[in-house]
Amino acid sequence: MNKSNSNLIQERFLNTLIEIADQVKKNSEFIDINQVLKLIDLIVKTDSNNGRIFIYGAGRSGFIGRCFAQRLMHLGIKSCFVTDAVTYRYSKGDLLVLISGSGETTSPKAIAEEARKIGGKIALLTGNPKSTIAMVSDLTIKIEGKSKEKAITQETLAPFTSLFDISTLSILDSIGASLMLVLGVTEKNIDERHASIE
Amino acid sequence: MNKSNSNLIQERFLNTLIEIADQVKKNSEFIDINQVLKLIDLIVKTDSNNGRIFIYGAGRSGFIGRCFAQRLMHLGIKSCFVTDAVTYRYSKGDLLVLISGSGETTSPKAIAEEARKIGGKIALLTGNPKSTIAMVSDLTIKIEGKSKEKAITQETLAPFTSLFDISTLSILDSIGASLMLVLGVTEKNIDERHASIE
Amino acid sequence: MNKSNSNLIQERFLNTLIEIADQVKKNSEFIDINQVLKLIDLIVKTDSNNGRIFIYGAGRSGFIGRCFAQRLMHLGIKSCFVTDAVTYRYSKGDLLVLISGSGETTSPKAIAEEARKIGGKIALLTGNPKSTIAMVSDLTIKIEGKSKEKAITQETLAPFTSLFDISTLSILDSIGASLMLVLGVTEKNIDERHASIE
Amino acid sequence: MNKSNSNLIQERFLNTLIEIADQVKKNSEFIDINQVLKLIDLIVKTDSNNGRIFIYGAGRSGFIGRCFAQRLMHLGIKSCFVTDAVTYRYSKGDLLVLISGSGETTSPKAIAEEARKIGGKIALLTGNPKSTIAMVSDLTIKIEGKSKEKAITQETLAPFTSLFDISTLSILDSIGASLMLVLGVTEKNIDERHASIE
Repeated sequence: MNKSNSNLIQERFLNTLIEIADQVKKNSEFIDINQVLKLIDLIVKTDSNNGRIFIYGAGRSGFIGRCFAQRLMHLGIKSCFVTDAVTYRYSKGDLLVLISGSGETTSPKAIAEEARKIGGKIALLTGNPKSTIAMVSDLTIKIEGKSKEKAITQETLAPFTSLFDISTLSILDSIGASLMLVLGVTEKNIDERHASIE
Repeated sequence: MNKSNSNLIQERFLNTLIEIADQVKKNSEFIDINQVLKLIDLIVKTDSNNGRIFIYGAGRSGFIGRCFAQRLMHLGIKSCFVTDAVTYRYSKGDLLVLISGSGETTSPKAIAEEARKIGGKIALLTGNPKSTIAMVSDLTIKIEGKSKEKAITQETLAPFTSLFDISTLSILDSIGASLMLVLGVTEKNIDERHASIE
Repeated sequence: MNKSNSNLIQERFLNTLIEIADQVKKNSEFIDINQVLKLIDLIVKTDSNNGRIFIYGAGRSGFIGRCFAQRLMHLGIKSCFVTDAVTYRYSKGDLLVLISGSGETTSPKAIAEEARKIGGKIALLTGNPKSTIAMVSDLTIKIEGKSKEKAITQETLAPFTSLFDISTLSILDSIGASLMLVLGVTEKNIDERHASIE
Repeated sequence: MNKSNSNLIQERFLNTLIEIADQVKKNSEFIDINQVLKLIDLIVKTDSNNGRIFIYGAGRSGFIGRCFAQRLMHLGIKSCFVTDAVTYRYSKGDLLVLISGSGETTSPKAIAEEARKIGGKIALLTGNPKSTIAMVSDLTIKIEGKSKEKAITQETLAPFTSLFDISTLSILDSIGASLMLVLGVTEKNIDERHASIE
C-alpha cells in the first residue's frame, strides 16, 4: 500500500468501527424493552420449570446463537444449539430462540414451523417482524441494524449483515447480564462453569 | 417480575448495551492501526499469492472466528475455519488468524506452535499481547475489552468475555469493510457469494 | 460388574459389532450399483465443470456427511458441508448430496426443496426411497440398515439408526475409493491435502 | 464412463465395501475386550457419580466422536463434544474420551495433557497404543484399521483413514448397545430423547 491508500483504508476501518458502535447504541434507544423483559421472563420460567432453551440460526446468525447458548450454560441454564452433537428433544415445556435477519431463512423457518406443531414456545430476534418466522413466534424482538433483506439496498460501511449480527450479539449478551442480576449469578459462578479443556 | 424488579432489569439491560457500544468505540481510539493495516496487507498478499487464510479460536472466540472466515469467502478470499469439514493443509504460503483473549487457550496455543514449525504466517487478536501465542505470532492486534484472564477481577456489566468477543467481531467486520475497499468488492458481489441454501 | 454380567455385556458388544459388519456386507449385495455409478459420474462431471459438491444432513447423518465433504476435498474436489463457516452459494451447476434415513427430516427437506427451486442437482442417500426428499431428488441411493422410521419397530442389537449411519459412511468411503480410481488420486495426494494443523 | 471403465469402478466400489465389512469383523476378533469392558464400566460409574462424559477428536475422528456424544445423550448420560457451544467445565469426576488414529494429533494431544493436569479420567481409541496420548490415558482401546500414521505406507482400497474411522464408529455404537443392556435403556427411550427439531 502506498501512503494515500493506507490513509483511505485506515479511515474506512475506523469509520466502520464507529458506525458499529453507534448502531449498538441506537439499539438501546429503539429496542422494544417490553419484548426484552418478556424474553428474560420466559427464559427464567422455562428453566425453573425444568424446560430447556434451544437456540438456532443459520450462517453467521448461527454463530451468534452459539455464543448465547454457551452463555446460558455459564448461567446454569440448560441449553443447546440445535444441530450440535447434544441436541435434546424439543417438547412443550421448552423454549426455542431463533435468530434470522430476514425472518425467512430456509432452515430456521422449517424448524420454527416444526416447533409450532410440537407446541413449545418460540422467540425470534429479527430485522423483519412481519416475516414468516415472526408469524409463528410467541415473541419477536426487532433488531436495529441492516439485515439480509436490505443487504444490497441499504448503504452502510459495515459489510452485508454485520450491523444486524453485532447488534444481535450485543443484545443477547445484555440479556445475559440481566439474567445474572435476576438469577444472582456472579462472574465467579460463570468461571466455575466455563470450559477448562478446549 | 414485579414493577421495581422490572425497572432494575431494564436498567441493567440498557446499561450493558451502552457499555458494549462504548467499548467498541473505545477500540477505535486505542487500537494500534498499524497492526490492523499490516493484517489487511497480509490477507491481501496471501490471497493474491494463492495462499489461504485459516481462522481458529476456541469457544466463543471460535464462533466469532467463523463469522470472519465466512466473510472472507464472501469477499472472494479462500479461507477455512480450522476443524470444519473442509480444513485445508496449512503450508508456508498460508496465513493463520487466531483469536484468544488470554493468548494461552489450550488448542489455539498448540495449533499456533504447530503452525510455527510449518512456517506459514500467524496473526493474533488478543487481550494479552505478552502471551505465549503472541510470542509465536508475526503480528498481534491488542483488543480493548475484558478477556478471560481478567474475567473475574475486572468489574463490568457485560458478562465474562463479552466485551472482548464483541470488540473482536466488530474489528474483524471493520477489517472486512476495509478489504471491500482494497479489493473493490461490492455488497452485490457479497450477495452473489452468500449461501442460498442454509 | 460381576462375572456373569460381564459375560453378557461382552457378548452383546461382540454380537453388535458382528451385526454391523454383516450389515455393511449386505449393502454390497443389495445396493443398486447403477445409482452408485450415476452418483460417481455426477460428482466427477460437476467438478470438471467447475461446479461444487454440497453435503448436508441433520444429526448423526450430518456428522457422516462431514466425513464425506472432507474426503472430497482430499480428492481435490471443491466441496462444503452446508452450515459450516464456508458454505458457498448453491447454483444451477452444483450438486447437493443429502443424507436422511427417513427422507423426511425437517431441515434437509426444507433445503432440498430450496435447492430444487434454484435448479442444481440433488442426490439422496436414504432408507426410504419413497420419501418427500426422494421425490425432489435426481438420484436416490437406498441404504440397507435400520433408519429412523423403523428405529423402534425393527429389532436390532445396534442402537437406533446406527446400522443406517455406519452403512452410509461405508458406502460414501467406497465411493471415495472409486473416485480415487476415476481421478487417478493416490494416498500420497490425499496426504498432501490433509489438514496439518487441527 | 464407457462399459469397461464402469466395470472397474463397480468392482472397486464393491471390493472396498467388502474390505470395510471385513475390517469391522476383524475388530471383533482382535479387540482387547477387557479394555472395552473397562470403558463401559468407567462411563457407567462416571455417570452414576454425576460426572460427565467429554468426547473429542480432530477432523473425521471428531465427527465420529460427535456421533458417540449424541448416542450417550440418547442413553440418558450427560455428555458433550468439546468445542460445541455447550462444553462444560471438565473436572476431576469427569471422563474424557479421545479419538486419535495416530495418538499424536495436535489439539487432542494438547487437550489430553490439560485434562491430565486437572485430574479427571481419560480414555483413548487409537491405532497407536504407544503414542503420546496413550501415555497420559487411563485406558487405551486399540482399533484395527489403517490410521493416519500408516495412511501412505499400508495399501488398502478404502481411502486413507477410512478403515480406522468406520471401525471406531462401529465399536462406539457397539459400546452403545452394551450400555443399553447395562442401563436397561430401550429403543423407545432413545426415541423419547432423540432430537425432534433439526
